[in-house]
Amino acid sequence: MSVIDHENYFTSLPREYYLDEGRYTDELAKVWGQQWIYAGHVSQIPKSGDYFTFEVGTENILLVRDGDDVTAVHNVCRHRGLQLCNQPTGRVGRRIVCPYHSWTYGLDGKLLKATRQADGEFFDYKDFGLFPIHVSIWQGFIFISMAEVAPAPVASMIDEKATADMAILDPTRLKVAHEITYYADANWKLLLENGVECYHCPSVHPEFCVSLDSQEMSDYYEDDYVGDLVQGLVIPVKRELESLSMDGKYVSKKLLGEFGRGTPVPDGFGAGFMTQPGYAWGGFHPDYGMIASTLPISPTRSKMVCWWFVHEDAEEGVDYNVDELIKIWDVTNHQDLHIQERQQVGLTSQRYVPGPNSPSQEPGIRAALRKYLDMMGEPS
Amino acid sequence: MSVIDHENYFTSLPREYYLDEGRYTDELAKVWGQQWIYAGHVSQIPKSGDYFTFEVGTENILLVRDGDDVTAVHNVCRHRGLQLCNQPTGRVGRRIVCPYHSWTYGLDGKLLKATRQADGEFFDYKDFGLFPIHVSIWQGFIFISMAEVAPAPVASMIDEKATADMAILDPTRLKVAHEITYYADANWKLLLENGVECYHCPSVHPEFCVSLDSQEMSDYYEDDYVGDLVQGLVIPVKRELESLSMDGKYVSKKLLGEFGRGTPVPDGFGAGFMTQPGYAWGGFHPDYGMIASTLPISPTRSKMVCWWFVHEDAEEGVDYNVDELIKIWDVTNHQDLHIQERQQVGLTSQRYVPGPNSPSQEPGIRAALRKYLDMMGEPS
Amino acid sequence: MSVIDHENYFTSLPREYYLDEGRYTDELAKVWGQQWIYAGHVSQIPKSGDYFTFEVGTENILLVRDGDDVTAVHNVCRHRGLQLCNQPTGRVGRRIVCPYHSWTYGLDGKLLKATRQADGEFFDYKDFGLFPIHVSIWQGFIFISMAEVAPAPVASMIDEKATADMAILDPTRLKVAHEITYYADANWKLLLENGVECYHCPSVHPEFCVSLDSQEMSDYYEDDYVGDLVQGLVIPVKRELESLSMDGKYVSKKLLGEFGRGTPVPDGFGAGFMTQPGYAWGGFHPDYGMIASTLPISPTRSKMVCWWFVHEDAEEGVDYNVDELIKIWDVTNHQDLHIQERQQVGLTSQRYVPGPNSPSQEPGIRAALRKYLDMMGEPS
Ligand code: FES
Ligand code: FES
Ligand code: FES
Repeated sequence: MSVIDHENYFTSLPREYYLDEGRYTDELAKVWGQQWIYAGHVSQIPKSGDYFTFEVGTENILLVRDGDDVTAVHNVCRHRGLQLCNQPTGRVGRRIVCPYHSWTYGLDGKLLKATRQADGEFFDYKDFGLFPIHVSIWQGFIFISMAEVAPAPVASMIDEKATADMAILDPTRLKVAHEITYYADANWKLLLENGVECYHCPSVHPEFCVSLDSQEMSDYYEDDYVGDLVQGLVIPVKRELESLSMDGKYVSKKLLGEFGRGTPVPDGFGAGFMTQPGYAWGGFHPDYGMIASTLPISPTRSKMVCWWFVHEDAEEGVDYNVDELIKIWDVTNHQDLHIQERQQVGLTSQRYVPGPNSPSQEPGIRAALRKYLDMMGEPS
Repeated sequence: MSVIDHENYFTSLPREYYLDEGRYTDELAKVWGQQWIYAGHVSQIPKSGDYFTFEVGTENILLVRDGDDVTAVHNVCRHRGLQLCNQPTGRVGRRIVCPYHSWTYGLDGKLLKATRQADGEFFDYKDFGLFPIHVSIWQGFIFISMAEVAPAPVASMIDEKATADMAILDPTRLKVAHEITYYADANWKLLLENGVECYHCPSVHPEFCVSLDSQEMSDYYEDDYVGDLVQGLVIPVKRELESLSMDGKYVSKKLLGEFGRGTPVPDGFGAGFMTQPGYAWGGFHPDYGMIASTLPISPTRSKMVCWWFVHEDAEEGVDYNVDELIKIWDVTNHQDLHIQERQQVGLTSQRYVPGPNSPSQEPGIRAALRKYLDMMGEPS
Repeated sequence: MSVIDHENYFTSLPREYYLDEGRYTDELAKVWGQQWIYAGHVSQIPKSGDYFTFEVGTENILLVRDGDDVTAVHNVCRHRGLQLCNQPTGRVGRRIVCPYHSWTYGLDGKLLKATRQADGEFFDYKDFGLFPIHVSIWQGFIFISMAEVAPAPVASMIDEKATADMAILDPTRLKVAHEITYYADANWKLLLENGVECYHCPSVHPEFCVSLDSQEMSDYYEDDYVGDLVQGLVIPVKRELESLSMDGKYVSKKLLGEFGRGTPVPDGFGAGFMTQPGYAWGGFHPDYGMIASTLPISPTRSKMVCWWFVHEDAEEGVDYNVDELIKIWDVTNHQDLHIQERQQVGLTSQRYVPGPNSPSQEPGIRAALRKYLDMMGEPS
């Protein structure tokens, strides 16, 4: 019997699971070091030699555009370990050059030159390329995995309908209109658990509930939610409304993909995906999309990187205003992170014991935590 | 033989006692989790549904007025652990409602409603009330204990004379005129040791020594100090002076209790109490009183919450000025906390070994540390 | 085989050596608690009763001028452990008096008076003097060692030529013109490794390379560098230039020692010393000198105290300007510390493995790390 199963009900995890340093280190290896993690979108590195960096726990990952490919490597020089690129985003040009002693790598991560040490003189260059990381691109969205053997490609994990629905939006012709990194003094699993139930939506998110179809959202976790590492997701908007926004109206005039070319929007249209247990989700509507990637910093601290996407030709001030575009999610994210911090404080109490979760309102938690326990090698 | 006993003298505790993380966790359970801790005064929550919160180490405690009673509970929702009330003080009204999923508790801590889960459907409400904490009220002063079985009531621990002297002041008719929380980068036991000796008074507290009868204070620790969990205490003022203040004169014109009604003040009058090893003390004079409750934050950080009390009808600006009222203790507290921080830095040295304490000047330390060792289950 | 030796090459240390808390504590005892550490110059405490304090890991050391001698003691009262002097520099006068209970020590550290406890009443004063620390003064430069048995005197470790060259500069007639403490989020051994190679100079220090003879500098680590605890050192300036500065010209008009009295400066003159593994170095030119002492704060944080020396009679604004005087080293230090922080971030990656160091460019690292491993009791 797993730690979440009790005689008549299931619960969230015991106290130490959200506090323990040793467990956290294990999780970095067994969960975050294995699964696909959403890292960014191809439009962020349009030209060969463009890069961005991405942090997951102790690991800093360098993603570089290499012609049509995207290379992901550990951002650590093979000589004495310098972090190679230390900006969130930038250009390396045609080579990656370490600033300490000028060792030089190709855009594919191969060592091209170790200063004043010829190839084969003391060691073979081929043994000292940057450590590679798996990349899987689905519809322009970049996922990475630090596993030795990569999980199945993201495209093979997401069902056909979700893929077809996303394709309607021309997802490679998006641009990032805005990006925010939120921080919370809370264990990363509290962000996950919060994300996979809508039991809290009426109490916590009055604004979100204006356009969210919360019944359909709850049904998703009961019916469609398979608890896989990656899967399709729809953030359901009430039928009579246009988009997920403060008033349910479009927040970008330039509709995405086919809808911008005149195809009528079907009732209840939405597209997106989610990953878990390391939790990310993307929700796309006819006019815009938002992707959030939650990431661990320490046992009691996490962050959430959020990107807002609009049509690549949409003009700020004309087609959309950033304030309006981000408002519904920004309000909702702040509410959630505030609640998670308050939950972390609560479960720090020695007297905290997890209580019964609702089978009808919180089934997503059970599925997510089973997956988690399974990856951790514990009874699930 | 205990760690404080040496062949010809006694000392304070070895270095690790003030630094070790594991010991600190033990102390939270064996000392702070057992004894009565001074938490506040009934005047702070005059109406049913008023609350204040109080932190002791990892525990956040919610104190709520429930009619004539005071309820103390762990401030942690029994569902998924949210901290229920997150303000220092406020009102819950007639119910305690968790902001996450709206589970609802009575002012007595009983679970009244788990959202969308009927009583008995998956679990019995009666098993999921908030975890209770013992309360003992002595003359309007609220003490709490997190022990499974409460220690004897505070009233039974304080001797008759101390109780009678306090009663003269009508202690339920006080109000908090000012509150300050001080922080110090020092182990909580350094605050205790400092508090139970006046060997340091001449060097550290020139202002305090103007009105303090330091000989009588030292005698208290030699003669009257029994080293009990709770006991009566008088902060002795020099016979020729009125009160403990910068110049020995009253700092509030509206005298307390009987003295306000014309009863002449007896020579050397004073009232108060102290708790230990978790250290709090209250010192009352005819015109005002101050209570300080020291609390652990980490092995190397503590805080001290101080409340200044005056007659409930005293008017600020007319009967007293806050600056004048708090000055003598505020000056003295800063001096002590500064010294304790400097002591913590000193004993962080690997070469620190505790030196001989003075049998005539520091007997209070021996009694307090024996009580401490006893509670920790070590030879005392 | 040691951890730095590999089949065909040598490397720096494995990842945990730069991160582990337990190892760090060991290092404080086995390295920093043993070797000579550069602490200051006699000119900083010219009069009896002058003091300065100096921190090494958990230890705060008090250095007091006692007539012609310099006393070094642990800055911790033998009663209840207060830090005695808490300013970087000051005067104690004729006695060291503890501010807590006024125990009084002589300038030699002996206990002279324990308040209200006569010598022999409960204990003998002679058993409670301040804990002494070894001092070794070489040409006015003060080195300390916390070892039980001191290493050989510094003067005996530095070769005759280095001593004779330094003597030319009248090193006891210097003054500190400026002092800066730099901080870096990096393990102290990264500062050491950086200091003992010039492989990085062309990439990292364009300004430094203007006046530095980097070939001769590299040769020093290949030929003259013996890897002893203390040894002579020359920071070599290009033959055609006067001093180590932004443009290679003197930065103080009042030349030091003999050169100020008209003796012509020999080609390639320089004087100085270094200590390791706990790393300090001093580089003196005809017009000024700079000494840097690197010190550990935690496994991942270090500091570097730097002092700039000029002739004791040199006048600021007339003979030198501080900005100009410190510029070359200030620029260089910032570059190094920035690189070391970036290296610390890099090797925090779980995938970091130390790569091959260059036998011709980084031999100093091998010698320094062998000494380190040797002191730690590991195969070197
Ligand atoms: S650390 Fe990258 S070249 Fe040396
Ligand atoms: S955590 Fe309190 S109702 Fe869910
Ligand atoms: S601690 Fe120094 S005299 Fe008491």
